[in-house]
Amino acid sequence: MMTGMESLNVELGERGYPIHIGPGMLGEPERLRPALHGRRVAVVTNTTVGPLYGDALRRNLAACDISSDPLWIELPDGEQHKTLATVETILSRLLEARLDRGSRIVALGGGVVGDIAGFAAAIYQRGIDFVQVPTTLLAQVDSSVGGKTGVNHPLGKNMIGAFHQPRAVVIDTDTLKTLPQRELQAGLAEVIKYGLIRDAEFFAWLEEHIEALRALEPEPLAYAIRRSCACKAEIVAADEREGGIRALLNLGHTFGHAIEAGMGYGAWLHGEAVGTGMAMAARMSERMGWLDTAGRERAEALIQRAGLALEPPGAVTPDRFRELMAIDKKVASGRLRLVLLRGIGEAVLTDAFEQDALDDTLHEHARVA
Amino acid sequence: MMTGMESLNVELGERGYPIHIGPGMLGEPERLRPALHGRRVAVVTNTTVGPLYGDALRRNLAACDISSDPLWIELPDGEQHKTLATVETILSRLLEARLDRGSRIVALGGGVVGDIAGFAAAIYQRGIDFVQVPTTLLAQVDSSVGGKTGVNHPLGKNMIGAFHQPRAVVIDTDTLKTLPQRELQAGLAEVIKYGLIRDAEFFAWLEEHIEALRALEPEPLAYAIRRSCACKAEIVAADEREGGIRALLNLGHTFGHAIEAGMGYGAWLHGEAVGTGMAMAARMSERMGWLDTAGRERAEALIQRAGLALEPPGAVTPDRFRELMAIDKKVASGRLRLVLLRGIGEAVLTDAFEQDALDDTLHEHARVA
Repeated sequence: MMTGMESLNVELGERGYPIHIGPGMLGEPERLRPALHGRRVAVVTNTTVGPLYGDALRRNLAACDISSDPLWIELPDGEQHKTLATVETILSRLLEARLDRGSRIVALGGGVVGDIAGFAAAIYQRGIDFVQVPTTLLAQVDSSVGGKTGVNHPLGKNMIGAFHQPRAVVIDTDTLKTLPQRELQAGLAEVIKYGLIRDAEFFAWLEEHIEALRALEPEPLAYAIRRSCACKAEIVAADEREGGIRALLNLGHTFGHAIEAGMGYGAWLHGEAVGTGMAMAARMSERMGWLDTAGRERAEALIQRAGLALEPPGAVTPDRFRELMAIDKKVASGRLRLVLLRGIGEAVLTDAFEQDALDDTLHEHARVA
Repeated sequence: MMTGMESLNVELGERGYPIHIGPGMLGEPERLRPALHGRRVAVVTNTTVGPLYGDALRRNLAACDISSDPLWIELPDGEQHKTLATVETILSRLLEARLDRGSRIVALGGGVVGDIAGFAAAIYQRGIDFVQVPTTLLAQVDSSVGGKTGVNHPLGKNMIGAFHQPRAVVIDTDTLKTLPQRELQAGLAEVIKYGLIRDAEFFAWLEEHIEALRALEPEPLAYAIRRSCACKAEIVAADEREGGIRALLNLGHTFGHAIEAGMGYGAWLHGEAVGTGMAMAARMSERMGWLDTAGRERAEALIQRAGLALEPPGAVTPDRFRELMAIDKKVASGRLRLVLLRGIGEAVLTDAFEQDALDDTLHEHARVA
C-alpha cells in the first residue's frame, strides 16, 4: 500500500498550483494552510459529502489559522442543481457574510460541487481564489484539475462558465471508500480516457489492473490517480484555455453530453455518459478506417470491464443526438468537431470526418435500442 | 475641429487591443472588421440606443464580412436591469441561436450595456470575445476600457463579475450629440477623476475647458476623451487585475457606490454618485491634513461646474453609508480602504485613515440634508 504523499505541480506560471495526492490528506492541515491562513473561508459542499467529511475538514481548517469560523454552504446533491440559480444562492451567502476579495472558497465534494463552487469563486467580486478538495474519483482525476468551472443551461451542459484555476488541489484517496460503486465506475471512464488519448502504456496497465481498481485496492488506485493527474497537469500546462491539445480531453464528451442532456441531467452520471461516448467514438473511428478492429475491441472491452455501458439509451434517437451535438462547444464556426482515435494512445480533434460514419454510428445505436 | 481618427493601444500582450476614437467611427467598417470578419455576431444594446444607432451599426456590420445576420438583443434601459437575470436572458438567446465559441458580442450603448454584455461574453461557454462600442461619455472614457465586466447584486454594486478584456473599443464621438445633459455631466465626473488622481496638467486644462465640454464642442471633447482613455490604458496595462495602482481609479467610488445602493440603483447615475463621492473624498482628505484647502476648493469648484452635486442625498444617513461601505470590494481582510488625495493629481489607496475624519465627513453631509 502506498503510504506516502505525492505532490505534482500544474505549471502555469503565476497561476500554477500543487496537487497533493494520498491517503489521509484531510487530516493534514499543512496541505491547505498555505492557501488559507489569515483568510476568511467559505466551504461549499453538498448534503451527501458534508456529513461524511465535513467534520474532518472543519478540524483541518481549525489548524489552518483562518481568520474566523468558516462559512458553511451545503448544496443539495446532484447534477440537476448545477445551475446559475445555485451559483446565485452561493453568491448571496458570501455577500450576506460580507466575505471580501481576499477570502477563499474550499470546494469539498465531487465534480458538480467543484464546478459550481469554482464558478462562484470566478465571478464573486470579479474573482476570488479557491481550493479543490475532490471526493469522487472523477473529480480527483479530472474535473478538479485545470480550472474549468461552470454550470449547465437547459440548452446545454457547461454552457455557462469560466476558466479559473484553483490555488491548490488536495486529494484524500481515503474518501473513495465511501464512494458508491456506480460513481467509481464513472470515474474510471476518465481514467481510461487518458490511456486512450495519449498513454498506451497506461492503457495496457489498466487492462491488467481494472478489477483491482474496482475493488479499491489502495496501491493501484493511488497509482491510477497520480498518473491521471500527471496527464491532466501536462495537458493543462501546455494549453490552459483549450486552444489546441486540451480539446483531446473531450474524447467521448460530445456524444456523452448529448446523452446527458437528452436524458435530463442527472439520469446518467457524467462519467457513465463519457464511457459510452468513448465507445461510440472508438466505433466511429473504426468506421473511418482510423482505428483498427483490434484497437476498437480493446477500447470496448476495457470500458465494459469498468462496468460502463457500450450502448447509449434508446431514448436518445439519432436525430436528437444530432440536434444536441450541434450545440456542443466544440462546434467551430458552425462545423461540428469530434475527438476521434487513430490508435490506442493517439487521439485527434477533427472536423474532417465522414458524415456517413457519424450517421451510421448513431443509427447503429438506435437499432440496438 | 478634430476630423482625423486617433488610435491608442492597451498594452496587455496577447490580451492587448486598440481603442479607436473619433467622429463618424460607426460609419467605418475597417475599425470593427478585424475583430469580427468570418464570425457570427450578437449585438447587445438597449431600447434607447438601439433605435438611435442600431441602423448605423447594422450597415457597418454588413460590410464586416460576418458569417450571418447579427443576432440582435435589445435590453430595457437602466441600471436596475444590470442583474444576473438579464445576463441569463442574453445567454439563453445566444444558445437558442446556437452561437459557438468563435462568435463575438458587440456591446452598443453606455456603461450598463457594456458591463452586462461583457460579462455575458466572459461566461458564455467559458468566454468568447467581444467589442465595445460605447455611446455615453462615461463609457467612452472609463467603463469600456480595461475589461471590468459584471452586474449588481441587491447587496452591492458590481459584486458579480469578471475581468474580461474586449478585443477592440470603437468610440464614435458623434454619438454624444444625442446624450442627455445629465449623462454628459455624469461622464465628466470620470474625466475629472483622471485629473485628480494622476494628471494635474489635465486638471488645469479641464478648469479652462469645462464649459466647452458641457457645450459639446467637438475639439475639446475629443481631446478630453483621448487623454482620459490614455490615462486609463496606461493604468490598466500596469495593473490589469487591480492589485495596486488600478485601485486609484476608484476615487469617489466607495462613497459613490454607497449613494447608488442607498438610493436604489438607477436613482442617481453612476457618474453623478462618483462626482459627489469625489467631493466627499476631497473634504475627508482635507480633514486628514493631506489635501490643502486650495486643492479641496479647486476640486469642489470643478465638480460643481461640471453640473454635479457636492452633497449626497439626505436619505443616505451616516449609519447607512457605513453599512454600505463595509461591503465594498475595496475592503481588504475586513478593513475598509479608501482612495484619498494628497494633492491635485496625486491619490493614494489607504486603510490608514482616521475614523474620525470619515465620521465627520459623513456627519457633515447628514447635517446638510
